[in-house]
Amino acid sequence: MRKALAIDVGGTKIYNTLVNDKGEIVGEIEKHSTPKTYAEIISLFKEIIKKYENTVDVIAFATCGAVNNSNDGILGSTGNIVREYPKTDFKSLSTKPVYVENDANCAAWAEHIIGASKNCPYSVMLTLGTGVGGGIILDNRLYKGKSGAAGEMHFKINRGNKRKCTCGSSDCFEAYASGTGLRITAVETSGNPDITTYDVIEGLKNKDEQMTKIFDIWQNDIINGIIGLADIFDPDVVVLSGSMAEFVDTDYITEKVNTEIVTQPTKVVKAQAGNYSGMIGAGLLALGVKTDG
Amino acid sequence: MRKALAIDVGGTKIYNTLVNDKGEIVGEIEKHSTPKTYAEIISLFKEIIKKYENTVDVIAFATCGAVNNSNDGILGSTGNIVREYPKTDFKSLSTKPVYVENDANCAAWAEHIIGASKNCPYSVMLTLGTGVGGGIILDNRLYKGKSGAAGEMHFKINRGNKRKCTCGSSDCFEAYASGTGLRITAVETSGNPDITTYDVIEGLKNKDEQMTKIFDIWQNDIINGIIGLADIFDPDVVVLSGSMAEFVDTDYITEKVNTEIVTQPTKVVKAQAGNYSGMIGAGLLALGVKTDG
Repeated sequence: MRKALAIDVGGTKIYNTLVNDKGEIVGEIEKHSTPKTYAEIISLFKEIIKKYENTVDVIAFATCGAVNNSNDGILGSTGNIVREYPKTDFKSLSTKPVYVENDANCAAWAEHIIGASKNCPYSVMLTLGTGVGGGIILDNRLYKGKSGAAGEMHFKINRGNKRKCTCGSSDCFEAYASGTGLRITAVETSGNPDITTYDVIEGLKNKDEQMTKIFDIWQNDIINGIIGLADIFDPDVVVLSGSMAEFVDTDYITEKVNTEIVTQPTKVVKAQAGNYSGMIGAGLLALGVKTDG
Repeated sequence: MRKALAIDVGGTKIYNTLVNDKGEIVGEIEKHSTPKTYAEIISLFKEIIKKYENTVDVIAFATCGAVNNSNDGILGSTGNIVREYPKTDFKSLSTKPVYVENDANCAAWAEHIIGASKNCPYSVMLTLGTGVGGGIILDNRLYKGKSGAAGEMHFKINRGNKRKCTCGSSDCFEAYASGTGLRITAVETSGNPDITTYDVIEGLKNKDEQMTKIFDIWQNDIINGIIGLADIFDPDVVVLSGSMAEFVDTDYITEKVNTEIVTQPTKVVKAQAGNYSGMIGAGLLALGVKTDG
């Protein structure tokens, strides 16, 4: 069975494992803190690759940042990782084929092949974490756009520069639907500058009235974003993944979305491919695993 | 040269003409008021088709309403035309092949083949009229979604049910970016309930300060919507068509959009395929005219 060395590159952690063409993890999960210098990052990549490259068919990176359409380099800047990182010449890191894709796109592909959007030609995945990632599958193919950077969830859901976003703009979906967005909504609603996301989630569990109200405002912002995506894409399914997806009520969201959209009914569901879906999807993409469509 | 009888079905007018496979209009433009009863609409269709069907290869409808993926029927309700219209069995109207597509999709296809998005594999078209229509071309193909209804521009650009939309929901892009949206923005900004879209456009031409300010608010809502679409699709170009597109400043819009998006730079341009682009696009689609991509 063919397999990939999969490496997940984030701003704080780098993971690696082995993934086969069924989307199964067939190696140990190794975890590293993301080095602070570019030279150390490249050294770490080389060390991981040296250890495994003779046992795999391909090297698969799931990385932060937008990835080009030839799947070998990063477009523009990537936020919370060293400035030089986007210059990385991934193909030079191994004698085996090297394949690079954005981490959210990889996770969406894992859901498409083995997870919550299996057998769905049209799906949109939203990764609700500290920020919001996006991955779009159309007609059974990963949608990348003219340059490879498509699927950025920075459409605006508010008017009048009400809330700054990490992207430098304001009022973006990410600024409301992320974990950070929940905290800001909590601060704005409660007037307490020290309130945390944790406080809201604990309050929700304990049926605290104010915390439930704050959570509902946040979930409603997510609903409003999904309504827009459903009207634009007419997808079979919208998949919610990431640490914050755990807390949302997808049955309620589905009902609300279908009440408001002008396209045909869709479903909103939670991701099923697990915590390492980025590496699984990178492996599947690098190994060329796709559906019949 | 192959040609189509093209029929454009709107809530107030029905047009017909002949279109060849170069996207040229090769017949007279005939204009009819949309009949008030379903029986009269079907009679008019039959009369038009009877007159031309022996001289063409295919019958091409550009219609209001979302059209299914087999291009022979309408999905759901269509707003401002008789209630029974969506039940129309288009294929039964002629012995020649009959092809049906949504009017905004047809117009986007005309721009893609002969107009402003020619040679652009990825484009989004917004038709700014009384409402807002949308047409999406991805990888040189018309994007239709799971059911055919994709491309509805009812994503929300405001929060808190601030403005009702014709779709029954609120805060949609259409409620701000349409001509109707401009009028409501003018009423809200000026406090004058009798102000019209015409007043704003005339004031803009005469450099009236308040009218220019109102216009800028409206144009900024359009910019904010385009930012979201550009971040989602990473398109080569965004095409603005429709009666309201005449007044916008596409150079300014392009600059503002590219300042805020996190994907790669795009261009915002005005449509070039003319007032009958719906019929031209319907004809080209029905005749199977596409690009190499």
